[in-house]
Amino acid sequence: MMTEIGQAAKQASRILRRTDRASKDAALLLMADRLLERKEDIQKENKRDLSLARGMGLASAMMDRLTLDDKTLKSMADGLREVAALPDPVGEVAGMWKRPSGLMVGRVRIPLGVIGFIYESRPNVTVDAAALCLKSGNSVILKGGSEAINSNMILEKILKEALIETGMPERAVQVVPTTDREAVRALLGLDQYVDIVIPRGGEGLIRYVVENSRIPVLKHYKGVCHIYVDEFADLAMASDVCFNAKVQRPGVCNAMETMLVHEKAAREFLPEMGKRFQKAGVELRGCPRTLEIIPYAKSAVESDWPAEFLDLILAVKVVSDMDEALDHIERYGSNHTEAIITKDYNRSRRFIAEVDSSLVLVNASTRFNDGFQLGLGAEIGINTSKLHAFGPMGLEELTTTKFIAYGDGQLRD
Amino acid sequence: MMTEIGQAAKQASRILRRTDRASKDAALLLMADRLLERKEDIQKENKRDLSLARGMGLASAMMDRLTLDDKTLKSMADGLREVAALPDPVGEVAGMWKRPSGLMVGRVRIPLGVIGFIYESRPNVTVDAAALCLKSGNSVILKGGSEAINSNMILEKILKEALIETGMPERAVQVVPTTDREAVRALLGLDQYVDIVIPRGGEGLIRYVVENSRIPVLKHYKGVCHIYVDEFADLAMASDVCFNAKVQRPGVCNAMETMLVHEKAAREFLPEMGKRFQKAGVELRGCPRTLEIIPYAKSAVESDWPAEFLDLILAVKVVSDMDEALDHIERYGSNHTEAIITKDYNRSRRFIAEVDSSLVLVNASTRFNDGFQLGLGAEIGINTSKLHAFGPMGLEELTTTKFIAYGDGQLRD
Repeated sequence: MMTEIGQAAKQASRILRRTDRASKDAALLLMADRLLERKEDIQKENKRDLSLARGMGLASAMMDRLTLDDKTLKSMADGLREVAALPDPVGEVAGMWKRPSGLMVGRVRIPLGVIGFIYESRPNVTVDAAALCLKSGNSVILKGGSEAINSNMILEKILKEALIETGMPERAVQVVPTTDREAVRALLGLDQYVDIVIPRGGEGLIRYVVENSRIPVLKHYKGVCHIYVDEFADLAMASDVCFNAKVQRPGVCNAMETMLVHEKAAREFLPEMGKRFQKAGVELRGCPRTLEIIPYAKSAVESDWPAEFLDLILAVKVVSDMDEALDHIERYGSNHTEAIITKDYNRSRRFIAEVDSSLVLVNASTRFNDGFQLGLGAEIGINTSKLHAFGPMGLEELTTTKFIAYGDGQLRD
Repeated sequence: MMTEIGQAAKQASRILRRTDRASKDAALLLMADRLLERKEDIQKENKRDLSLARGMGLASAMMDRLTLDDKTLKSMADGLREVAALPDPVGEVAGMWKRPSGLMVGRVRIPLGVIGFIYESRPNVTVDAAALCLKSGNSVILKGGSEAINSNMILEKILKEALIETGMPERAVQVVPTTDREAVRALLGLDQYVDIVIPRGGEGLIRYVVENSRIPVLKHYKGVCHIYVDEFADLAMASDVCFNAKVQRPGVCNAMETMLVHEKAAREFLPEMGKRFQKAGVELRGCPRTLEIIPYAKSAVESDWPAEFLDLILAVKVVSDMDEALDHIERYGSNHTEAIITKDYNRSRRFIAEVDSSLVLVNASTRFNDGFQLGLGAEIGINTSKLHAFGPMGLEELTTTKFIAYGDGQLRD
């Protein structure tokens, strides 16, 4: 079954790669209309998933993420319209130059081809991912969580109807119609048809995909994000930024997990910052020098430094100088997002130059590492490996370039 | 041993990524001088490899490739100087924009980190690859062919001396000091330290690397390049281009392997073209319609269409229209290089748009798919997977970009 799905996706991609923007946008806009028109059908299937999940005792946070209420459907339709409004990256000529031979050589942006998208729970991701892949000229094979299978199947049906009605290839969007986990393994072996796999979910899912895939994988394992409060920081700004980075939404990958404080700032900064965190329910786990200043913090253990807490927990370390902060980030960081708070020009430059993360910020919250916030217009995931696209991936990151050359009979000597 | 090599490479890469252009160029220029000054030492070690290879009965073409004579050493030194003269891609800001939040967001080019380079035979590749990796700010682990081990070890020694003398990290360039094939497998498991693997060699080596690597691989299996002679071709130009693409250097990946001829051009084009190929010793393997026109051609079998002959052999097929040519390329091509010969504007546009290859040419020889010929200034290999860099890879393709952001206290709502 998976081989047939792979072949169909490949064939659809051959049509998609030469489909113009107007046709793709028409399909996206019709999908948005149909999602709202077919609300009852969708919610009926979604209720089947919800009642099965309730029977299996799914946690209430998971139930929330599984639910397609009116508000979620509205935001899914809005998302489709927003993607339709974004520029089409395909066909953009990224430079053209003339060679001594007279050959005109250029690079033109093309779709990747077929994308395998593997994710957990939330059925709204089915529509988001389909929209981004379609707009960038790729066909997509979607393997969602087993608890969302009925919701995903009805969503696929509606998306396909819109594809057919607008003259697009029906198999451009395919949901794997099974909850069998073996289907994931089979998908990961389709290197003949699938160009790239993007997993989205917990560390376990991502590790499974990386270890079993013969197809290149774009992924991030975890975000262990640091803010370094320099000796020359504006401490009021440092307090606001660190508070925002930890507390505004602690369960996401770009939240701060470790705060590094220069020893010359620590005595003035930590007592008030500690109180502010304490009030917000943040559990602090400090190094010995932190505990001297805020004795109510817990003592940090080695495993706290590389931890992605995804919770109201923060590791805190006092460092003797900037080198110690950079070494700590190099050793324990995840190449995701790091920020420095400083008023010193040279230190800001050094931090930007030396920190090896997908986003490096000066005087701003780590929470900005997100395709929308950085201005990419969309986001299908964040990549913390350096290949292809480092950091948040928008439409352009779902494409590549090929070389083109115009000649008049050029030969190699 | 391989783990220690991986760790050392990672540490060296941390220094390299903030090394300025002048220091890298100084090291490259000193390497060039030393290669020529230490000629006798190098050739002594190379003779050891050559006499061992002779004993093992290595083919004479292989012996040639293994030999470091004065001319080869001179061209290796020239290559180092040319790489020194190329612009440094690291630090280039690829766009910067202001967000509504006031955050200034940009993309800056950074090295990939650590590159694993696995290749066969030719010891000059050791120096070429080291130069490109160093210039692009990456450290490199080089695993060459076992028959070149003594040559590679002395080259590493000389490169390292130049690194030390110019204050660069000594472990930026490392040759794996063993002929044990298990070292390749160990290298492919160093995903903690190595960011990317580039294999260069025969299909067997490349398959082995892809199947055993947990690190992303940039590679191409084979080049099955096509030229489509359209019904509206300038037939004199078509003859010159096809002859050049097949005969000028048949043993390379960008040589033509299959010629597709529109039926309306075939009767006029094939008789003379066939004779020209025949005279040059090219064996022709034709479809039935080809055999009607040039009966001295052999009859092509199914396995000829996807074949990379790398020899004076050419598959020839007469097609009824452009669709049949495009379908043939889609089915049997390797996404490497294809060309159309035509005077028709719309057909040139259609070919450029629809052919899914790393280089698509109009009216020029497939032999131009090469980093130097396309103007990249250098080439470390050709990538026929679409991830990261599709086509020839120069210095820029050995880098990636990270996001940077300058703020004044920005918080997420």
